[in-house]
Amino acid sequence: MKKIKAALLGCTGLVGQQFIRLLDDHPFFELACLTASSGSAGRTCAAALADASATIAHAATLALVIRETTAAEIIRSRARVVFSALPAAAAGPLEAELRAAGLRVFSNAGAHRMDASVPLLIPEVNPGHLELCRAQLRDHEGFIVTNPNCVVAGLALALKPLTALGLRAVTVTTFQAVSGGGRRGVAAWDTLGNIVPFIAGEEEKIVRETGKILGELAGDHVAGSPIEIFPSCCRVPVREGHLQSVSAEFDRPVSSGEIREALAGFAAEPQQLKLPTAPAAPIIVRDEADRPQPFLDVQAGETGPVVAGRHGRARGMAVSVGRLRPRGRRCDLFLLLHNTVRGAAGGSVLNAELAASKGLIPGR
Amino acid sequence: MKKIKAALLGCTGLVGQQFIRLLDDHPFFELACLTASSGSAGRTCAAALADASATIAHAATLALVIRETTAAEIIRSRARVVFSALPAAAAGPLEAELRAAGLRVFSNAGAHRMDASVPLLIPEVNPGHLELCRAQLRDHEGFIVTNPNCVVAGLALALKPLTALGLRAVTVTTFQAVSGGGRRGVAAWDTLGNIVPFIAGEEEKIVRETGKILGELAGDHVAGSPIEIFPSCCRVPVREGHLQSVSAEFDRPVSSGEIREALAGFAAEPQQLKLPTAPAAPIIVRDEADRPQPFLDVQAGETGPVVAGRHGRARGMAVSVGRLRPRGRRCDLFLLLHNTVRGAAGGSVLNAELAASKGLIPGR
Amino acid sequence: MKKIKAALLGCTGLVGQQFIRLLDDHPFFELACLTASSGSAGRTCAAALADASATIAHAATLALVIRETTAAEIIRSRARVVFSALPAAAAGPLEAELRAAGLRVFSNAGAHRMDASVPLLIPEVNPGHLELCRAQLRDHEGFIVTNPNCVVAGLALALKPLTALGLRAVTVTTFQAVSGGGRRGVAAWDTLGNIVPFIAGEEEKIVRETGKILGELAGDHVAGSPIEIFPSCCRVPVREGHLQSVSAEFDRPVSSGEIREALAGFAAEPQQLKLPTAPAAPIIVRDEADRPQPFLDVQAGETGPVVAGRHGRARGMAVSVGRLRPRGRRCDLFLLLHNTVRGAAGGSVLNAELAASKGLIPGR
Amino acid sequence: MKKIKAALLGCTGLVGQQFIRLLDDHPFFELACLTASSGSAGRTCAAALADASATIAHAATLALVIRETTAAEIIRSRARVVFSALPAAAAGPLEAELRAAGLRVFSNAGAHRMDASVPLLIPEVNPGHLELCRAQLRDHEGFIVTNPNCVVAGLALALKPLTALGLRAVTVTTFQAVSGGGRRGVAAWDTLGNIVPFIAGEEEKIVRETGKILGELAGDHVAGSPIEIFPSCCRVPVREGHLQSVSAEFDRPVSSGEIREALAGFAAEPQQLKLPTAPAAPIIVRDEADRPQPFLDVQAGETGPVVAGRHGRARGMAVSVGRLRPRGRRCDLFLLLHNTVRGAAGGSVLNAELAASKGLIPGR
Repeated sequence: MKKIKAALLGCTGLVGQQFIRLLDDHPFFELACLTASSGSAGRTCAAALADASATIAHAATLALVIRETTAAEIIRSRARVVFSALPAAAAGPLEAELRAAGLRVFSNAGAHRMDASVPLLIPEVNPGHLELCRAQLRDHEGFIVTNPNCVVAGLALALKPLTALGLRAVTVTTFQAVSGGGRRGVAAWDTLGNIVPFIAGEEEKIVRETGKILGELAGDHVAGSPIEIFPSCCRVPVREGHLQSVSAEFDRPVSSGEIREALAGFAAEPQQLKLPTAPAAPIIVRDEADRPQPFLDVQAGETGPVVAGRHGRARGMAVSVGRLRPRGRRCDLFLLLHNTVRGAAGGSVLNAELAASKGLIPGR
Repeated sequence: MKKIKAALLGCTGLVGQQFIRLLDDHPFFELACLTASSGSAGRTCAAALADASATIAHAATLALVIRETTAAEIIRSRARVVFSALPAAAAGPLEAELRAAGLRVFSNAGAHRMDASVPLLIPEVNPGHLELCRAQLRDHEGFIVTNPNCVVAGLALALKPLTALGLRAVTVTTFQAVSGGGRRGVAAWDTLGNIVPFIAGEEEKIVRETGKILGELAGDHVAGSPIEIFPSCCRVPVREGHLQSVSAEFDRPVSSGEIREALAGFAAEPQQLKLPTAPAAPIIVRDEADRPQPFLDVQAGETGPVVAGRHGRARGMAVSVGRLRPRGRRCDLFLLLHNTVRGAAGGSVLNAELAASKGLIPGR
Repeated sequence: MKKIKAALLGCTGLVGQQFIRLLDDHPFFELACLTASSGSAGRTCAAALADASATIAHAATLALVIRETTAAEIIRSRARVVFSALPAAAAGPLEAELRAAGLRVFSNAGAHRMDASVPLLIPEVNPGHLELCRAQLRDHEGFIVTNPNCVVAGLALALKPLTALGLRAVTVTTFQAVSGGGRRGVAAWDTLGNIVPFIAGEEEKIVRETGKILGELAGDHVAGSPIEIFPSCCRVPVREGHLQSVSAEFDRPVSSGEIREALAGFAAEPQQLKLPTAPAAPIIVRDEADRPQPFLDVQAGETGPVVAGRHGRARGMAVSVGRLRPRGRRCDLFLLLHNTVRGAAGGSVLNAELAASKGLIPGR
Repeated sequence: MKKIKAALLGCTGLVGQQFIRLLDDHPFFELACLTASSGSAGRTCAAALADASATIAHAATLALVIRETTAAEIIRSRARVVFSALPAAAAGPLEAELRAAGLRVFSNAGAHRMDASVPLLIPEVNPGHLELCRAQLRDHEGFIVTNPNCVVAGLALALKPLTALGLRAVTVTTFQAVSGGGRRGVAAWDTLGNIVPFIAGEEEKIVRETGKILGELAGDHVAGSPIEIFPSCCRVPVREGHLQSVSAEFDRPVSSGEIREALAGFAAEPQQLKLPTAPAAPIIVRDEADRPQPFLDVQAGETGPVVAGRHGRARGMAVSVGRLRPRGRRCDLFLLLHNTVRGAAGGSVLNAELAASKGLIPGR
């Protein structure tokens, strides 16, 4: 099967690096164009990735020369699919322009997440929202699909199977890793041996985006979910992995058994379709007393040892849940997700895989 | 005024060091006896404190020779008051034995906290519970007064002024510093760049002890408070200061103004009596967007610059509260306390100051 | 080719886990016996590894039931080769007993490193010292081969190619990761946001072991190298990877070109024999201004992306060197090695691979 | 005695905060003017210091309104003395302009450190270099005095007493705290659980500035010292305190006793004059096996407990030295200094105190 040419916008940041790792040697997509700001344009991918933590791509990918992030460069590359790791301000107009040019844009940026016609997608949670793309295609030549904020990517995924048990409200305190702020976004002075109980705009995004993802498709838009979300966000001295302390309240008493079964047994279209980046189980329930922990569980998703030759593409794509403590109508638990994988690059790659499998990307 | 001779049990640990700092040159008490395990007995206080972070006591205190922790040694020292920084297992029988010998024991250990006749005391919260000492004095020659678990020391203090607004339930997620586990209790491998979402026995203590402290004195025991507490405890890579993300639920809608006023305006007997270790305001409300933070706020309590000659005894004795977010019948907020000061040594010193001011310690 | 049955002693620690990862699905060896202290005996490998950071072995390995570390259990397993991750005190007599029973022991423990007849081996540095095994076989049924202390594993490897340039003396300051002290060996209170400029016994080991490894085989023992080593050891808040600041002094002026060429061009028997755990290049020279760094370079050794199906066995087996600054007769540089891979488990596995390839292990 | 009006340029940064703490209630100087960039101008000192870690100044200082950093504002304030915590680029022309206007400028900035007529001063090391001010006063209305780079402030101080023993060359590896890069200068992603073995320009500064400070005054300039310095600089995840691993080489064999005596017995003019910010002993020798450590020793300098009412002005002004390991003609040791106190603000305050005591500041 012929691969679909893809462009990656903003390839040099922490999220961009994860996109490169996941798209290298991908069965559906072929990286044909990498872009970055003018400072990196002209360098090879290998040079731009010198500060990545390991060899993450094959020679062909590493040899790509980075272009400047402009619509003209991207269109010239003949990419049919675009992955965007741009900052929101740059992403807004450029992603719209690329959609107008007929491209399928899968974006991690916040710019279009709340647009009525743009799906805010987690393939295991609201695959039906992909229908909004058909509406977009009536009005535009292409479409935009977004993945949510990193916290929401884990939270909405873990809450989805609980909605059937009468979920009503959620109080969540986050422990967010410094990679969530980008390579230079969080100062060592603020974070080292310290906790900052505030991340600008984050709590609003969590309320808004969780509501849209858990909402119902109603014709050409999504009606927000009535589940109430009360977030309190903190930055912690951890490199990768957002831990969340979640208190879920239900309409009725819940038991440990039904909560555990709902979470551990959860699977959805990505698993049934065996999409390349889909973990075998999207939610992993840990029964130990002290899990999940960022250092131990952030890479969850793969079922076998990476040393033995598996592709490892699903590493970091599963959400780990633990310390289930039901009590009457509420259940307290912890969850963990890899913020730059399931919470960013991996989310968009899985979105594109689902769209491709549904025939929304021509040429496949 | 003559000072009361005091013994400090378990002087070499992190809490023991804070006791020494606070009792050095104290206006009510005079350190006459320091004890530790047999390994440290025979060394001077100065030698035992070589790994404390600063010069924390005067020459007379530093010259004290440490004795082994036995009832005989303590009684021989003629101390009238005992401060205990012992582990719970050692504290249980020894503190009872010292009480039987007529001593007034102020303990940070968990052993006797839930004894019906032992006050679990925060002077600003439940000073009336000190009445239980009179019952103890009927049955014993002396008495035991305990301070609560470090998390509770901050939580119950901040909740107290909210009870008048109809407080009904509290969900709390903690970010607990490694000093809470003692000098060797938390491994670097577990904590460095990681979060451990579990501390053995901690959540049970928080429920139990908060219930007793916020409860009502009913004759010779305390009737537990009906306020529900739902704790989730984490160890974080911070040295000192327990941050807590608190969601308080009330019987009725609350406003930002009344919450703020209740907290910031709170003062109680220790402030009215101007006890030596009492902070001018026990709760400091921070209005910045991103406070309280452990590094910036853990020493709160003092009103002026330490450089200018104040005694600094109240540093670390105030709880900092911030990010007040009322919404209907609930209010989310963060609070921070110094876990080895207000949450341990400082708590017991303030308890003893209150007891002394109420005439419960003979010779003063 | 039939695989050789192997036993791993002390499988539950941080080094034990690396042994399991490296020996799982190994082309030469087959894990037939895992041992640990009585507390872990009886549990499966999977249970004992619950706190490892990723899925590191296949189902067959994970299903192994851990036995207690006794000579009887090991001998009963019919293992021909033993890998030892035991503490030095336990390793001393037990390894000698296993040697007497005819086993080939490859040990990370310090107990026998300085025994005159025991090779202290780095396959790229002193493969000829393996000849000492023949002397051992004259006196015993089996033999012991040791790998050096973690710092020495990187230092002696990087110094080896410089000896030909007239190396005379080395001043080295180390930045040692907390994993070097074992899972519970380093306290968070000592390390978090702090540096401890002392590691008990470490500097003596570095002098002694580097001297033996760089020494010349003289009949039945090794004559120590005359190169002087001046070490200063520090524990730093890093999880994995020992960084070293090295000042090398030579008999004559050295140039940047010859230093770089000696290091980057270095290869030896493990590379020529393409041993399974040997990195393509044992020393990787980084030309960036700010490398090597523990987080970025600790996994060096593999040449391609792990995601694409390579086995990844050589990850962490290369030493990274950077910031070459020659000036007259001296050259300053930094080096980094993975302390629990090249500096421990990987060192012994590579030693065993070399011994097997030289016919020192019967049955292969 | 009348106090001298002083201006502080760049008051909001980490170094600026230390200047405020040290100049608050100072016996010689009175803060009459605080400046910062236009973003902070107009705010009170209290507001600008909201993220300082403690209450560090009296009400009068906290009430000062910050002005924009311009020569006109500073001159209008009638300050006679200027303390500069500006970045080098801004400091260069402005400090020269203020000197031309007759002000005495004490600067932490790097701009003028290597000017032939400007003293690069550590009062205990090269007080005689202050004579250069008289040359400046012939050519200008005022003068500039600089303190060295933070590493040099500790290194040159500890080396000074060793010069009499025949010091010839020094190899030094640094462990530099993140505060050395300013509040936003070091990214958490680079530093958390990592070591960066490079700080741009730092090694060159150390060579250059140590040479000037240890050099001899030769008429109107300083002849650099012939002692060779070989620095290797690292950024480590520590908040405050630069640790240094030093190997000193001498012309002749040295003994532990003479090294210890030279260091511990060292005192100079600031001690004899009892300058307000001078520590009783500028170098503190630690005899424990594992000292100095940043967390434990960074505040060294004060002789008594701060709680008891001393002013605490000398905290962080002493250099701690430990692990003295003489061997033949060399001696290895560790030293530690507080990088933003002795290595920055405190250095300049002590310089100004020395200048005032020598009659170089009119009005006193």
